[in-house]
Amino acid sequence: MKALIFGGPGQRSWESTADPGISEPTDVIVKVDATTICGTDLHILKGDVPAVTEGRVLGHEAVGTVVETGAAVSSLKKGDRVLVPAITSCGRCAPCKKGMAAHCEAVGGIGWIFGHLIDGVQSEYARVPYAETSVHAVPEGVADDQVLFLADILPTGYEIGVQNGRVQPGDTIAVVGAGPVGLAAMMTAAIAGAGRIIAVDMAQSRLKHATNFGATHTVVGGEDAERQILEITGGAGVDVAMEAVGIPGTFDLCTRIVRAGGTVANIGVHGAPTTLHLEDLWIKNITITTGLVSGTTIPTLLKLARDGKMEAEKLGTHHFALNEIEEAYDVFAAAGEHDALKVVLRG
Amino acid sequence: MKALIFGGPGQRSWESTADPGISEPTDVIVKVDATTICGTDLHILKGDVPAVTEGRVLGHEAVGTVVETGAAVSSLKKGDRVLVPAITSCGRCAPCKKGMAAHCEAVGGIGWIFGHLIDGVQSEYARVPYAETSVHAVPEGVADDQVLFLADILPTGYEIGVQNGRVQPGDTIAVVGAGPVGLAAMMTAAIAGAGRIIAVDMAQSRLKHATNFGATHTVVGGEDAERQILEITGGAGVDVAMEAVGIPGTFDLCTRIVRAGGTVANIGVHGAPTTLHLEDLWIKNITITTGLVSGTTIPTLLKLARDGKMEAEKLGTHHFALNEIEEAYDVFAAAGEHDALKVVLRG
Amino acid sequence: MKALIFGGPGQRSWESTADPGISEPTDVIVKVDATTICGTDLHILKGDVPAVTEGRVLGHEAVGTVVETGAAVSSLKKGDRVLVPAITSCGRCAPCKKGMAAHCEAVGGIGWIFGHLIDGVQSEYARVPYAETSVHAVPEGVADDQVLFLADILPTGYEIGVQNGRVQPGDTIAVVGAGPVGLAAMMTAAIAGAGRIIAVDMAQSRLKHATNFGATHTVVGGEDAERQILEITGGAGVDVAMEAVGIPGTFDLCTRIVRAGGTVANIGVHGAPTTLHLEDLWIKNITITTGLVSGTTIPTLLKLARDGKMEAEKLGTHHFALNEIEEAYDVFAAAGEHDALKVVLRG
Amino acid sequence: MKALIFGGPGQRSWESTADPGISEPTDVIVKVDATTICGTDLHILKGDVPAVTEGRVLGHEAVGTVVETGAAVSSLKKGDRVLVPAITSCGRCAPCKKGMAAHCEAVGGIGWIFGHLIDGVQSEYARVPYAETSVHAVPEGVADDQVLFLADILPTGYEIGVQNGRVQPGDTIAVVGAGPVGLAAMMTAAIAGAGRIIAVDMAQSRLKHATNFGATHTVVGGEDAERQILEITGGAGVDVAMEAVGIPGTFDLCTRIVRAGGTVANIGVHGAPTTLHLEDLWIKNITITTGLVSGTTIPTLLKLARDGKMEAEKLGTHHFALNEIEEAYDVFAAAGEHDALKVVLRG
Repeated sequence: MKALIFGGPGQRSWESTADPGISEPTDVIVKVDATTICGTDLHILKGDVPAVTEGRVLGHEAVGTVVETGAAVSSLKKGDRVLVPAITSCGRCAPCKKGMAAHCEAVGGIGWIFGHLIDGVQSEYARVPYAETSVHAVPEGVADDQVLFLADILPTGYEIGVQNGRVQPGDTIAVVGAGPVGLAAMMTAAIAGAGRIIAVDMAQSRLKHATNFGATHTVVGGEDAERQILEITGGAGVDVAMEAVGIPGTFDLCTRIVRAGGTVANIGVHGAPTTLHLEDLWIKNITITTGLVSGTTIPTLLKLARDGKMEAEKLGTHHFALNEIEEAYDVFAAAGEHDALKVVLRG
Repeated sequence: MKALIFGGPGQRSWESTADPGISEPTDVIVKVDATTICGTDLHILKGDVPAVTEGRVLGHEAVGTVVETGAAVSSLKKGDRVLVPAITSCGRCAPCKKGMAAHCEAVGGIGWIFGHLIDGVQSEYARVPYAETSVHAVPEGVADDQVLFLADILPTGYEIGVQNGRVQPGDTIAVVGAGPVGLAAMMTAAIAGAGRIIAVDMAQSRLKHATNFGATHTVVGGEDAERQILEITGGAGVDVAMEAVGIPGTFDLCTRIVRAGGTVANIGVHGAPTTLHLEDLWIKNITITTGLVSGTTIPTLLKLARDGKMEAEKLGTHHFALNEIEEAYDVFAAAGEHDALKVVLRG
Repeated sequence: MKALIFGGPGQRSWESTADPGISEPTDVIVKVDATTICGTDLHILKGDVPAVTEGRVLGHEAVGTVVETGAAVSSLKKGDRVLVPAITSCGRCAPCKKGMAAHCEAVGGIGWIFGHLIDGVQSEYARVPYAETSVHAVPEGVADDQVLFLADILPTGYEIGVQNGRVQPGDTIAVVGAGPVGLAAMMTAAIAGAGRIIAVDMAQSRLKHATNFGATHTVVGGEDAERQILEITGGAGVDVAMEAVGIPGTFDLCTRIVRAGGTVANIGVHGAPTTLHLEDLWIKNITITTGLVSGTTIPTLLKLARDGKMEAEKLGTHHFALNEIEEAYDVFAAAGEHDALKVVLRG
Repeated sequence: MKALIFGGPGQRSWESTADPGISEPTDVIVKVDATTICGTDLHILKGDVPAVTEGRVLGHEAVGTVVETGAAVSSLKKGDRVLVPAITSCGRCAPCKKGMAAHCEAVGGIGWIFGHLIDGVQSEYARVPYAETSVHAVPEGVADDQVLFLADILPTGYEIGVQNGRVQPGDTIAVVGAGPVGLAAMMTAAIAGAGRIIAVDMAQSRLKHATNFGATHTVVGGEDAERQILEITGGAGVDVAMEAVGIPGTFDLCTRIVRAGGTVANIGVHGAPTTLHLEDLWIKNITITTGLVSGTTIPTLLKLARDGKMEAEKLGTHHFALNEIEEAYDVFAAAGEHDALKVVLRG
């Protein structure tokens, strides 16, 4: 088969490689019908994720069709259309039983293994371990595009942003960072009933997208952002501030704009420590949450997609055939230039 | 002033009576700017509520303007526009401190006293006891019509239906009974992210209204209703079944259509016992809830109204001047004939 | 091997039968180190559970040692000591993923299959399906007796009584029925911080046991029970009333003694409908819950046993060798006469 | 009357001052029957709390007897024994209605005003504003000593430590800092069912006290603490880590010892920022909480004291007459030397 193979920092190519086969009785093999590229893939290509070694097939988000099943698999069969999420869940370790597959012990303590510790899904076929406890049937009548982003960014926005942030109907929230994950947080916060959604970003083009994903207010990031957000909230601060960038400055902003009793839900991937102003925050009755997605809400999101309550496909702004993936990488790597959010690759 | 006065079963009249005055330091007097009529008022007129004695001013839902304040009132002042809810809360008894003003001890163990144990608000002026812990400021820019139904039916639908039912984004719910309170439950369930809302009623005219309040499916009540609801849910049953009629048959239907692990939220006012099929239900992991509204969610609903997320005014289908209240009663008492939901009376 | 075999209504015998073997790759075989008898087993013997057919090995609670593992089993190995709970969980169906193995679809929609739909554990060896998602490792240093009752009655008391009842520190609760499951509810309610635990039973001998399981007050069941319970609570009623008998009268008592805003948690197995006084209860803001145990709290209970916070072994009042099981059945069937709670059978 | 008066940094004296009187209709005057000294009072004396001006009566924890009531007070009367908590709650502002009196707007946005913004309770008599929504009746048969510490440190430990930390039965928790508030957290965590309570402190004398308040393990603070705590938990980390010191190092320790999915509940009062290692924590699915007590759990704690489930009086190690308060300050300021926890002053 063909696959997108990592060749060390800066190196990737769409090339032939061995077809995957069943190696554990809990595996299935899927034909990849749709996949996409994640910001993390770009980090890997920069050499930022040393656990990814040369020769690895990249990618961790797919919709596929089952073509082979392991001996222990009884609830999936050839021909089933499935969503293959970013996170693998063995279903039997303590974290998985608690709904925290993000820390699945059976796959090494971190549930993200596709395109990281094992071959990924930017390929014609892929081996899916612990398939029955990891994949989800795609409801009839729902297209690949409608569920592809439920593999990672939508449950990330919903679980790590909206659920951790305990967004309630009527809440005023701020989402700092209007990239794909921030937009996913806005989209699902709107479904959960948020009354005001303030999008904050440095780029006007992203703020424009934000209004299409539920934002009711937009604020350009920078020195004046705090003042503007407090003004919108009559000085009180927001009920929930979501950090979707991953740098100290935006995290700090979140702690300054959250109201007493509110929540800062960190979604961003951070590479550096930050200063936490406990001398101000100890008395403020706030909650700060962090986390990697576990995918527990994917069944809910699938129902919302099926019932027409969530147009997840809007995140896919650019479409390619799977064998055009190298071009797709170029577009996604220069997302600003192309006004791209996510790319869709069809197998 | 003029007021709608109960004269015993079958007797009501809009007539002159003494102006209300401050009697406790925690009282305020409001000029009534808008009020409405509740199904309960019709029950009182039938003589079904013996606690209501002759001479009582009826009505328990109003928007008003403060015209006088008691000596202990510091957070309200003349000219403030306020929502006067159906439930009075002293704010200091154990139930009120727990957010259960429905059982406020200071006013006798049941928070509904307007037009019941004290004079109500279908009048030009009204005395509002425990005002600071009971009324809510109407946000600037929000009209009387937009908040009037937040006095009773919207928090009833939201607290007793949606919150008790623990409606989550993506849930499939059934609301049995598409009268004003059932519609309020649908409207707020939609805001909370319900994916499918099945309205059940005997009257086609009400089912037609239901689709305007968030219902995605409609089922005519009766023998075939159970089968149709189960069919919509692929045989599984609904996540939440709300009873908004108040009779044994509809309650029983709710216990048959709820899925294992789901919730039956009773909103209806019942006058008779029902048979509970524990021989089937003991194993079903279900939750049944009952309750009178407490009004704890009114601040949330006010924000939703202010932010344009909830068009509560749609419940008001017929409008009258306050002094036309007798005509309004006639219309509301024959709601089916007039295709009326709620009437709005403007002071 | 030898096993306790059901021979139709009234018939049971400890006799030779074929050794169990692995039939699915997710199975394990355990040597039974300890088992017990449940009230349900007595019902089966009376012929009350028609799904149990002649030749079936009875029993659904065991501690055992793994002696063989299926091909898909990677987290269990020969020699592991495991608790085999009453409920089997496939770990991959929708109910299991939601923590509701009570309704596991893979085993037929009800998680209780041992000694019911497949051979049970009152035997020298037993086949355990879906082993990795069903059994629990017994912590080192913890004896069989300390965890045996975590197979069924303790998680039943805790999940269906204490968790469904939302028992909070300081709560006053009543447990109606002081049999083994009622005692398990008292024991775990005490751990969860209940301030007052009122045990209600017709038998003085059971009330005496109750004081050894956390009851702070005892009330003899019958006509005066309601008055006494209300007196203990100063007329307010209890925060949580747990029904652990399974008949209409005790369920009705629970609905009368629960305070406004409180919870009735039904634990009992009911064979008949009851009358639900909605004409009183609609306004009372109460919650009624039902359910079959799922076993989600077994990891918690194992930790409590390990840390010396719960002496579960106190429930085992009579001890036998496994091959004395027929005598043990006689004692358990006449529990009142022997002042027996649960019997322990050692393999 | 006599009162302990702040005379500027380093200055305090027990001297005569004017008797307090009713100034608002919602006030009551209490005769102080018991009071105590808080670490905050020592900070005030050091000059660390500039809002406290010369002439202020100090103290914010008391049990008293009502001697006079304002015109709007209807639920309290002369002779009532009441607990006067540290936090004043108007009961009518948005934060109070949400159970967050810590941020009561009516008293300036911070609920702690006694001995801070108004005269406190280290005096023979005290004026208590917003009395009906702030004080709590002391149950009959309960002594002053049993409830005095429910004015501040016990609800602080319970709300800010145990509730914010979401301590569940069976949890393993660490409390870093075994001063009075840390001990209060341990005591209430034990009531809530914590299985293992690890006390961490630099002082052996405090660790000795800790074992008397529920600690099951003790660890001397310092370089090896992290290793020891992880060893106790088999490398996994604790479910909940509570910070009860208020310095960067102990907060940082909490973030290192908490398990994936666990909670860091900050109780300490911090005067400096800390470094938050988001580069490690972003993926860890943790929750960090902060807060000032609101007192919402005082009714629960009063029931636990009444029912003999919580021996709060053990925190009072040294007893004095109220007019010996200067000596009591000396003892409390040198608590280590006297092995003192809290002092009790009897009026």
